[in-house]
Amino acid sequence: MNPIQGENLGTWVDGTRTDHVPADDRGLAYGDGVFETLLVRKGRPRFLDAHLARLSKGCARLRIPFAALRELRADIEAAVALAPPLAVLKIVVTRGSAVRRGYAADGAETPRRIVSLWTTVPLESGAGVMLARTSVRAADQPTLAGIKHLNRLENVLAAGEARAAGAFDALMLGGDDRLVSGAMSNVFLVRAGVLSTPLIDRAGVAGVMRGIVLRECAVLGLTVTQKNLMLEDLFGAGEVFVTNARVGVVPVLSVGEHSFDMNDIGRRLAAHIEALDA
Amino acid sequence: MNPIQGENLGTWVDGTRTDHVPADDRGLAYGDGVFETLLVRKGRPRFLDAHLARLSKGCARLRIPFAALRELRADIEAAVALAPPLAVLKIVVTRGSAVRRGYAADGAETPRRIVSLWTTVPLESGAGVMLARTSVRAADQPTLAGIKHLNRLENVLAAGEARAAGAFDALMLGGDDRLVSGAMSNVFLVRAGVLSTPLIDRAGVAGVMRGIVLRECAVLGLTVTQKNLMLEDLFGAGEVFVTNARVGVVPVLSVGEHSFDMNDIGRRLAAHIEALDA
Repeated sequence: MNPIQGENLGTWVDGTRTDHVPADDRGLAYGDGVFETLLVRKGRPRFLDAHLARLSKGCARLRIPFAALRELRADIEAAVALAPPLAVLKIVVTRGSAVRRGYAADGAETPRRIVSLWTTVPLESGAGVMLARTSVRAADQPTLAGIKHLNRLENVLAAGEARAAGAFDALMLGGDDRLVSGAMSNVFLVRAGVLSTPLIDRAGVAGVMRGIVLRECAVLGLTVTQKNLMLEDLFGAGEVFVTNARVGVVPVLSVGEHSFDMNDIGRRLAAHIEALDA
Repeated sequence: MNPIQGENLGTWVDGTRTDHVPADDRGLAYGDGVFETLLVRKGRPRFLDAHLARLSKGCARLRIPFAALRELRADIEAAVALAPPLAVLKIVVTRGSAVRRGYAADGAETPRRIVSLWTTVPLESGAGVMLARTSVRAADQPTLAGIKHLNRLENVLAAGEARAAGAFDALMLGGDDRLVSGAMSNVFLVRAGVLSTPLIDRAGVAGVMRGIVLRECAVLGLTVTQKNLMLEDLFGAGEVFVTNARVGVVPVLSVGEHSFDMNDIGRRLAAHIEALDA
């Protein structure tokens, strides 16, 4: 067991506790599905409705006819009932077992729910983290951008480079040196008190925590924009932070060789979001 | 059962006949693996060595330390022993069960083999097939191009559009209107007796049948080049054909509204490759 990345505490497949899934699942065959990763704090999955909304949106984009939200909520309740004070909940919805061999869906598949619970610990480096540069580019794919689908080889390879470099995450660029995101996080820049984060219309995932930050900036009177940002914008920023559902908001101390000294706004947002009753 | 797409005749996971895989497999979580689809003719998997070579190359690209080729060959023998005169064999190798949660591989995972056997029938439309245009673009991703990895949502969505249009396959373009491939096939153009097929260095799969065609062109004295081809090159071609492991070489009668009258070279290659003792 890795203390940070956790140990599996149980898996539920279509409501049944089991460690196995049918071998003909299209999630395995083609990555034909979506997933969510949630932090469970004191038995409560944080921002659950936002996660389920993104899950549903992803299924709609992939034309996966997922309608078992009530059953999924029951699976989540069963898992969360076993959760220690801090845990990670993972939800996967695939198109289900293949009705026919081959890429094209038949349309008669029954979507499959896979819910699993994992141990986790708070991020040790609350002061901030390092991001590595990565050779893996995020491909432009507007058809799939934004949703958290199961085609994640880019993230796997980029996160592997981050791990090899001893970094928290890897900063992924598009083919045009455009900022996209971390391999497992979204990125925000702060310059002269104004926040910005990359658009995720061509690549990247519309992170739930990214959405919470965008929403809470308004509450805190902070100005934030979504726009195309280039690598030089990152190097010109006074402050950088990353977000994801497990760690919330985390200041970035450095990206590769480049360091950032400030983290006032990141810290303020981190504390504010940490304190939200959700 | 769909007569074309087949019925499952058996699945072997790491050498054991079973219908299930562990739910923590990274192939399911992230599409972290590769696959091969072979035609089994009279109990013999066609071009097996070429398929296993591509599989190994794909694992190397993804840094999946797959070394169980001898065990995989034994799985294939067990499956093929049950094969009717014509069948499809599918081989999947994933990075294996997660050692830790999260994108980055731990390095201690044990790759998993999943071999399955399916019924199939010869292509009815030997005279030729129709290709549909698709709204799904093939993203430029040099890091993953060429290998047959499990991140296939582009193919799933494009093949779904082909199926809805009643077409054999969908012609996929890059974002720049560059020809890439069919969703489940490679494409060749013929103009003034000279063959060409798109490079697969930025997107697409280096199909085994594509490789056989390139090799056999030399045997037949045909000139063939791999190069960047645009949509207008397709419309300027006298003849078009597609290739994949199941159907071999198949003339294309039309792409969307555009028809092709000639199919001499495609037919000649189809017959030649069909007759190969492999």
